[in-house]
Amino acid sequence: MLRIPSLSGDPAHAGDIRRMAGWLAQHMQSLGLDKVAVMPTAGHPVVYGEWMGAGPDKPTVLVYGHYDVVPALMEDGWNTDPFEPVVKDGKVYARGATDDKGQLFIHVKALESYLKTAGAAPVNVKLLLEGEEEVSSPNLKPFIVEHLDLLRADVCVISDSSMRVVEEPAITHSLRGMTYIEVEVHGPTDDLHSGFWGGATHNPALALVEILGKLYNADNTIAVPGFYDDVVPLTQAEREMIAKNPLTEAQFKQATGVPGLWGDDNYTIRERVSARPTLDINGLWSGWSGPGPKTIIPAKAGAKISSRLVGNQDPHKIFDLLKSYIESITPPTVTVEVRLLTTGKPALIPFDLPEMQAASRAYEKGWGATPVFTRGGGSIPIVADIYDLMQIPVVMMGYGLDSDGLHAPNEHYSLGMFQRGIETAIVYLDELAHLPR
Amino acid sequence: MLRIPSLSGDPAHAGDIRRMAGWLAQHMQSLGLDKVAVMPTAGHPVVYGEWMGAGPDKPTVLVYGHYDVVPALMEDGWNTDPFEPVVKDGKVYARGATDDKGQLFIHVKALESYLKTAGAAPVNVKLLLEGEEEVSSPNLKPFIVEHLDLLRADVCVISDSSMRVVEEPAITHSLRGMTYIEVEVHGPTDDLHSGFWGGATHNPALALVEILGKLYNADNTIAVPGFYDDVVPLTQAEREMIAKNPLTEAQFKQATGVPGLWGDDNYTIRERVSARPTLDINGLWSGWSGPGPKTIIPAKAGAKISSRLVGNQDPHKIFDLLKSYIESITPPTVTVEVRLLTTGKPALIPFDLPEMQAASRAYEKGWGATPVFTRGGGSIPIVADIYDLMQIPVVMMGYGLDSDGLHAPNEHYSLGMFQRGIETAIVYLDELAHLPR
Repeated sequence: MLRIPSLSGDPAHAGDIRRMAGWLAQHMQSLGLDKVAVMPTAGHPVVYGEWMGAGPDKPTVLVYGHYDVVPALMEDGWNTDPFEPVVKDGKVYARGATDDKGQLFIHVKALESYLKTAGAAPVNVKLLLEGEEEVSSPNLKPFIVEHLDLLRADVCVISDSSMRVVEEPAITHSLRGMTYIEVEVHGPTDDLHSGFWGGATHNPALALVEILGKLYNADNTIAVPGFYDDVVPLTQAEREMIAKNPLTEAQFKQATGVPGLWGDDNYTIRERVSARPTLDINGLWSGWSGPGPKTIIPAKAGAKISSRLVGNQDPHKIFDLLKSYIESITPPTVTVEVRLLTTGKPALIPFDLPEMQAASRAYEKGWGATPVFTRGGGSIPIVADIYDLMQIPVVMMGYGLDSDGLHAPNEHYSLGMFQRGIETAIVYLDELAHLPR
Repeated sequence: MLRIPSLSGDPAHAGDIRRMAGWLAQHMQSLGLDKVAVMPTAGHPVVYGEWMGAGPDKPTVLVYGHYDVVPALMEDGWNTDPFEPVVKDGKVYARGATDDKGQLFIHVKALESYLKTAGAAPVNVKLLLEGEEEVSSPNLKPFIVEHLDLLRADVCVISDSSMRVVEEPAITHSLRGMTYIEVEVHGPTDDLHSGFWGGATHNPALALVEILGKLYNADNTIAVPGFYDDVVPLTQAEREMIAKNPLTEAQFKQATGVPGLWGDDNYTIRERVSARPTLDINGLWSGWSGPGPKTIIPAKAGAKISSRLVGNQDPHKIFDLLKSYIESITPPTVTVEVRLLTTGKPALIPFDLPEMQAASRAYEKGWGATPVFTRGGGSIPIVADIYDLMQIPVVMMGYGLDSDGLHAPNEHYSLGMFQRGIETAIVYLDELAHLPR
């Protein structure tokens, strides 16, 4: 499963995506699930399967997971081939180990445990595994709308999040949304010899850095006009809850290796990385980046930029604001193109729902520790969509660690946590079976 | 000759460099030159050969050329393989066609013409062909110092420059120098998930653009303190001479495709691109630049930056100024590394020397047009070194066109100009033979 490089963002890996979907379908079939199918969408397929043996008087759980991964290259700093899993010190190293192949597999194995021992699970289970989460699930919302009957359930559980330390599991009740754009500045038709044309040509790489340098104010707030307009201010009560799960400067530095902390001083570190919106440059490119010098004025320069959204921020409105602002600060000596890559809505689920509290008990019994309810800084755009479209609670039970290196080199997953995750997932199905209906 | 990808900046092409040097040596040997040798340096070898048959009472001409090229990739926008020459509409398309393989070959063919027809040339000729010009000739100066006796000559001629239009050939009497650096900003140890850490991490790509955004003042002058201190101001007389060879906004836009002109308004366009120093970003890299989105905070971000120098600017002093300034504006939330890649001194040769005037006559007779004396915006660092070390005039007789696309995709060279260049070089040797000694 980890060997298949199922990159959803790169058309060159479309075949691997199909291979991955086929592998999952075959595996689910081998466990005795029904209606197993690789179902087409306008993009990469959804893998579906269900076990409805608990009968109509028992609740139905919809498990959502994603089998696609983000890119991984040895030169990014991997110690071993990202698509050749290696087990070392009780951890498996591979792209997707924790995000999300390992975590989705916990639910498959929990169901398999029931079927192979008791012969039945205490609730009905539907598995919905998508292949476009890492490109912001552009086709899952239409898929859900089209298959509302097939997917109908009482609760949705997602394991695609993480905890700070093993003994402090976390249930995520809020996620940030996203607007992801690409900006490209164009100057001369071709790269120019910097000796012949340098001094009278506005270098597109310089123009790009001048533009990007204006994205922030001096106090590290985002300078795009209107950007914060729809952010719901944090209440004092919310800030107090967030403060129970602090993130110190020392912890932050230790986990990331940064020489110093940064951001909007009006908010705590935990608030900045979970309850406040961001604007990050995810990539830059221009001209020559190989070894040695090359004396050119590049024809163009580009950047990938993404904004994590909170509260009532609308991803498309944010795109419009970003585009207008960038175009307005682009000088007439170059041209600029601002393209929308993906969007995702932010989500906020009440944590006093019975299905949320059942998850808390499942951790206590299965994992052996009481979980905290937290706001996640990441984005699983489909959470907001499932919550809105299916009108059921979405319970995010993370089984990974913040330090698992997801989206980074040397992503890994603890085999011990994988086992405890399966045990917790087993208990959760039992807890759901006993909720008053 | 054009098929060999003799890239001097990329260690992967060291074998091609050796192959190119060997090919040239073999060709020179086949023409009957003496002392032909591929001579080692601390870097790529020098190819040497001489014909001294004119005898000691005739002057000796040292021809300098370079057989190395800058990188070329199809994806940069080449219409055909840059290392598979194609002749189309009387032009040969290939990396190095004009810079400098085609132009150095003019002198080889001029000498061959004398030897195969008259059986002798009117002057002695020494050929010095180097393989590191595109990486600023780090080893040629020590080579010249070591072989001063072997190289001794009365005049040096170099064809590695170009003219605006075919009927207006140019003799370059001034060149810009260079300081080429690499800047790398480091933040977190590895790439981070932008959802988990975004908002409290100073994104290294953002930090880099903030730093690079401070390289210029609002009036497009360079903001590095002390940068202009050693620039010799242009006299009114020099400005008038430069004005005789104007470069209009329309011409500039037509040649480059830029939407608008840029630079220091206190100087004309021609002055900006030849008689004034520059600071250009030659490359940018950070994080993800492949297809689709990747939601990371990159661990690092880098840039290649080069400055074209004039007048009395010292490349090493400029490096110190750049490094100090960049370090001084780097915030404590990231770290920065500023590395020197290459340097080259600027050069200025009086154009009233007899060898310069002989070149002018050679163009009139061989090319069929009176040349202009111009300042070149590019850099051939060795020009200043030869002038200083050998105390002989260096005559830069360009046989290329400004629009040949050197250092750019689809570099090409007119076969007609190649022929006229050979004829002009033939006449120049004759003109030199008749100079009063």
